Amino acid sequence: MQTIGYAARSVESGLAPWEFERRPLREHDVAIEILYCGVCHSDLHQARNDWGGSTYPIVPGHEIVGRVTEIGKGVTAHGPGDLVAVGTLVDSCRECDQCRRGEQSMCRKGPTLTYGSTDRIDGTVTQGGYSKHIVVRDEFVLRVPPGLDPERVGPLLCAGITVYSPLRQWKIGPGSRVGVIGIGGLGHLAVRLAAGLGAEVTVITRSEGKAAEAKALGATGVLISTDETAMAAAASSFDLIIDTVPVAHAVEPYARLLDIESTLVIVGLIGEMPAMSTVPLLLGRRRITGSPSGGIPETQELLDFCADKQIVPETETIAIADINDAFERMERGQVRYRFVIDMATLEPS
Amino acid sequence: MQTIGYAARSVESGLAPWEFERRPLREHDVAIEILYCGVCHSDLHQARNDWGGSTYPIVPGHEIVGRVTEIGKGVTAHGPGDLVAVGTLVDSCRECDQCRRGEQSMCRKGPTLTYGSTDRIDGTVTQGGYSKHIVVRDEFVLRVPPGLDPERVGPLLCAGITVYSPLRQWKIGPGSRVGVIGIGGLGHLAVRLAAGLGAEVTVITRSEGKAAEAKALGATGVLISTDETAMAAAASSFDLIIDTVPVAHAVEPYARLLDIESTLVIVGLIGEMPAMSTVPLLLGRRRITGSPSGGIPETQELLDFCADKQIVPETETIAIADINDAFERMERGQVRYRFVIDMATLEPS
Repeated sequence: MQTIGYAARSVESGLAPWEFERRPLREHDVAIEILYCGVCHSDLHQARNDWGGSTYPIVPGHEIVGRVTEIGKGVTAHGPGDLVAVGTLVDSCRECDQCRRGEQSMCRKGPTLTYGSTDRIDGTVTQGGYSKHIVVRDEFVLRVPPGLDPERVGPLLCAGITVYSPLRQWKIGPGSRVGVIGIGGLGHLAVRLAAGLGAEVTVITRSEGKAAEAKALGATGVLISTDETAMAAAASSFDLIIDTVPVAHAVEPYARLLDIESTLVIVGLIGEMPAMSTVPLLLGRRRITGSPSGGIPETQELLDFCADKQIVPETETIAIADINDAFERMERGQVRYRFVIDMATLEPS
Repeated sequence: MQTIGYAARSVESGLAPWEFERRPLREHDVAIEILYCGVCHSDLHQARNDWGGSTYPIVPGHEIVGRVTEIGKGVTAHGPGDLVAVGTLVDSCRECDQCRRGEQSMCRKGPTLTYGSTDRIDGTVTQGGYSKHIVVRDEFVLRVPPGLDPERVGPLLCAGITVYSPLRQWKIGPGSRVGVIGIGGLGHLAVRLAAGLGAEVTVITRSEGKAAEAKALGATGVLISTDETAMAAAASSFDLIIDTVPVAHAVEPYARLLDIESTLVIVGLIGEMPAMSTVPLLLGRRRITGSPSGGIPETQELLDFCADKQIVPETETIAIADINDAFERMERGQVRYRFVIDMATLEPS
């Protein structure tokens, strides 16, 4: 199938229209007309090859919402007209222990990512959701439940599941004391989802100006990380801290905020964590860990949970022609909190 | 009660005989004649004020085995003639959540350590087991079960519980794959205890010369950490790694050996952990944590387990007059694996 997307053609090119082919439907494939696609920080990094390994052209986008147009003859879970979603994964080995338990993001053989990965069958490079159509294996297609605004679902599929997964892994519920460091794309959803699970949520931020914003999102407290007195008073007071800060930063001051046998989960920082004292770890069995996105069953659970609780991201809808400007605004932190591309603005030339 | 011990009188003095008073028995106190006391690395550090905060004179020693000579009138759990033991703790608040669940080493108000701490009632500085007698609150006195050689029990009370506690916390049992980094005082017990719990144990060491030694202790495998090929082949192959190395070292190469959602527990390094990549943490939800010693119920469980399984430390018994030489040998790593002082060699002058 011929389609059109916005692709980076080189490290410095920015994104521009590109016509390309989607594969013909295989037995278990679902063809989707994309309605909306969220804009993730990793889209920007990969378009610019910040992490190395990008191949060009590259069509980013892994927060996809669309409507099924056609299904392969082995597909039973989805049908034409269904409102569906695709996140960061479009395939995996489907046989290893992790795939079998639904943790496809940790597939032993490596999952096939929505863009920039090698398709397991035909060896082509996968292309993402900044495009009009996509073809995805049925098991990796999620149902968008009624009651969720399709325009705002996208960011749940990467930002949302990335913070929801550790909330579930560490059994957050009523009475849990959750800290969220940073309130951007991931952080604002962490606040809403943790509050939705019944936790008391505190936003931990450098800037006093974010207090009202944090409370509007559902936080009951705000802790200013530059206030040493407040930080000392908050020692040992959290059951879980989700650290969404995407740039290198000291983790030790936050580790000291954890209660005994509690956990700090890094989801934003992919890179070097500075040296730190082991003392808070030893004296209170405090844990530092991380989390990738999440598996397919848990992502479906998240969508259902969000429909039930009416939790959606804060989004700003843009036309695809504005994507390069949006990347720049995202880099400057000028988005509250996630851009979503309205794919109706993308038409064949 | 007048007694005698070996005390450091200053940072540089080394240890020498010192006569001092033990408190009169309180209602819940047990008076113990000390038979043996293990020599822990922290004894050396605190005698020399390596961690700051030492007060002098200081009588080290928190791996104490002895016989009850007298009990306070409220004591029911111990009686004269009983073979008993005292580890790193002699009191705690006994009221906080941690004390109530038997995790006195993490007492919210700080436990009273066997030496160098302030007694909660009379405000005196506690003095340890390099001495002829000690008086300890009954709840902090452990029973030495029949079948354990009293000369070899001592190191279980600090080295032993420090590695046993994480093995239990992380539910190690038959089929578990445990790595132990370093085989000194803590490491050799970690190997024996993990094997005793039914795990497959691999010693991770820099030196090829330790293979035979590791296997003699009960390890089924040896991984040479300087062998990059072997380290790469061992990626994602451990459920738990206990890191007993007491000096600063990179943790990341060991984190990469953890399987998905598995845990590296630091028990040796009290200080700075170097910078590391978050990638192994994020991609596999791997965890880095630490552990202090352990609480009283778990230490009693350890003693009972060791009696049942006939697990004891490897020890070298010394006369107390040789303690300064022993400290020097310990610093040079010339002990397999733990010194125990025979307190019969300590007589009033």
